[in-house]
Amino acid sequence: MRFNFTIDKSSNQGRLGTLTTPHGKVQTPAFIFCATKAAMKAVTPVQMRAAETQIILANTYHLMLQPSSETVAKLGGLQKMTGWNGPMLTDSGGFQIFSLGHGSVANEVKGRRSNNRPKTLLKINEQGAKFKSYIDGRTYFLTPEESIRIQRNLGADLIVVLDECTPFNVEKAYTTESMRMSHRWGLRSLEAWQTHDNGTQKLYGIIQGGVYPDLRQESCEFVNEHNFFGIAVGGSLGADKQQMHDVVSMTMNLVRKDRPVHLLGIGGVSDIFAGVRKGIDTFDCVHPTRLARHGGALVKPSNNPKPTREHINLRNSFYAQNNLPIEPDCACETCSFASKGYLHHLLKAQEAVAMTLISIHNIYFINKLMESIRQALKHDTLDSCQKYWSNP
Amino acid sequence: MRFNFTIDKSSNQGRLGTLTTPHGKVQTPAFIFCATKAAMKAVTPVQMRAAETQIILANTYHLMLQPSSETVAKLGGLQKMTGWNGPMLTDSGGFQIFSLGHGSVANEVKGRRSNNRPKTLLKINEQGAKFKSYIDGRTYFLTPEESIRIQRNLGADLIVVLDECTPFNVEKAYTTESMRMSHRWGLRSLEAWQTHDNGTQKLYGIIQGGVYPDLRQESCEFVNEHNFFGIAVGGSLGADKQQMHDVVSMTMNLVRKDRPVHLLGIGGVSDIFAGVRKGIDTFDCVHPTRLARHGGALVKPSNNPKPTREHINLRNSFYAQNNLPIEPDCACETCSFASKGYLHHLLKAQEAVAMTLISIHNIYFINKLMESIRQALKHDTLDSCQKYWSNP
Repeated sequence: MRFNFTIDKSSNQGRLGTLTTPHGKVQTPAFIFCATKAAMKAVTPVQMRAAETQIILANTYHLMLQPSSETVAKLGGLQKMTGWNGPMLTDSGGFQIFSLGHGSVANEVKGRRSNNRPKTLLKINEQGAKFKSYIDGRTYFLTPEESIRIQRNLGADLIVVLDECTPFNVEKAYTTESMRMSHRWGLRSLEAWQTHDNGTQKLYGIIQGGVYPDLRQESCEFVNEHNFFGIAVGGSLGADKQQMHDVVSMTMNLVRKDRPVHLLGIGGVSDIFAGVRKGIDTFDCVHPTRLARHGGALVKPSNNPKPTREHINLRNSFYAQNNLPIEPDCACETCSFASKGYLHHLLKAQEAVAMTLISIHNIYFINKLMESIRQALKHDTLDSCQKYWSNP
Repeated sequence: MRFNFTIDKSSNQGRLGTLTTPHGKVQTPAFIFCATKAAMKAVTPVQMRAAETQIILANTYHLMLQPSSETVAKLGGLQKMTGWNGPMLTDSGGFQIFSLGHGSVANEVKGRRSNNRPKTLLKINEQGAKFKSYIDGRTYFLTPEESIRIQRNLGADLIVVLDECTPFNVEKAYTTESMRMSHRWGLRSLEAWQTHDNGTQKLYGIIQGGVYPDLRQESCEFVNEHNFFGIAVGGSLGADKQQMHDVVSMTMNLVRKDRPVHLLGIGGVSDIFAGVRKGIDTFDCVHPTRLARHGGALVKPSNNPKPTREHINLRNSFYAQNNLPIEPDCACETCSFASKGYLHHLLKAQEAVAMTLISIHNIYFINKLMESIRQALKHDTLDSCQKYWSNP
């Protein structure tokens, strides 16, 4: 079977599953790491596999601009080109168009303050979205059909419908209209996918509806009743963590149970536990690797001088002469030799290998977290598992 | 035996040797890669070993400023701290003090035009050299004794005497005086090393004398007659390649034959062959890894569209859709999966992993070159070996 999703166990603590793709199986709950421009930042495919990674994603938006999906296709498609050769997902391009376009969606989705990036979104209408390349200012028009065509060129196993990603501070009326347009775009994406379906890719629908229960219900019903292989929970998840958990919770109560469900853009340790408990199967977020590039190493509470935080900051001169690894009980390549003092030195000296070494730790940390969660689901011990990995 | 150097074969084509250190053996001729600030730029120790590296070096100058040799010692010394755990060399700090100090020695030694870096060398006298830190402007005074003390803290197997590195455009009188002071510094370095010798480190003397045959002779005699374990050929090697080869040639004719001889700062493929033919045992240069970070990949003439050059420039859009590896006949990790088109994309997208992947290729390339040279010396086939690796 090239594609399949089986639920191996389900309880009120979450569910265990197996997601089969032409490039291999993914044991769920799983974390999907972000290889935005068809490369994990500062980490090679060999290092990704050594860190026990199951699946990665790349971003349609970045790749359509550079090097173009045609070039990726000529270079053999994402899996061959990148040397990853394992399960992969691509997003639709929508999130970045609207995020970079409004200059602030990513921040608003996650309840952060706005930044001041230049706005590149030129026009959005029923047909699609017109935007300027952040690289050379060239104009692009992305439609649902074009997004699917590009994702076909890119060649990931799992692909996603084009949607509009609305900021959370827009009015309900706008969210409603936007959601319904996203549903129409979802149907067009589905048709574009079906027309060329050759069994090598499966399509995820996206649930929109912002923070509004009635809209989330309408969107769940839409996604449930159409022929999507998987379901992604998207759109604004609210202004803070509590609202995010509430939105995910009400959404998951309405989602059909036989499809893999992906929670878009969430990747903190406690948020992963909250998602698993709602039945989420896969997560993605730049957090573990972006954090690493800024000197942040994920640690269990038992290895953190500030156990209410989920990471330590290796830039802190507190670590300058510390000759212990990030986590003495970690079996990753980095912890096998590198002291916190050495990593502190590499960060201060601006050595690129610091990003590599801390990224390797954070990736391994998240993969071991997910493995631990799967074991806990198997043995109904998620509460003690959570206590081990995350402080309340 | 903790330290030893044996000459396994010697001919007019060069010589084969084995350099034994407490951290392992080095088969010579060998290349010593530069881990300037106690890290290979963009490459992990695991990747260095996978690329068949035998020995690396770190720079006293950079490490005494940051994180300080005391911190390196507290973190277990260079081999443990970096996770390299193989043979290592440190230089004395002299080259960088004078290079950064005059703002131009590195360029002049290699016959390049001057740059305009700020001058940090404040004073040089019989006692030592006073200079400002490029990091925080703090003042340091490096003496031969201090250099040896710092190198003892750093803990490399092979260490080097402090010398003054004179630009090639100074008058012969200055070169003469400088060389004689370097000899006196060499004796002080030797004494400082002997006083604390516990069998874990061996000292190299340095031959100075610029481009002047009589001075090179005087310097060779000095180094030959004192108790140095190894000999480094330093100082100005002239204004161009021919003069460099001539200086190395006249120097090597005068050097005693029972010690390992290192040629400082030379690392082009044809220059390595020229050095081997004069009897050089080890080379070092930032060239292979610096070239990689700028998108240059070392290739054999048979893999180069411009066979008179020693590398290809992967930034060139000529490679944008090329789906072959840098060298189809290369067995390095990078060539096992990455096309030139993919590497071109990674460079354009400013992905740090581009530097990693091209560095891995260049390091493996140089290590295979040296292995090939050793095989050729064994079988007296250096001429055909050179034709295979380097165009005349």
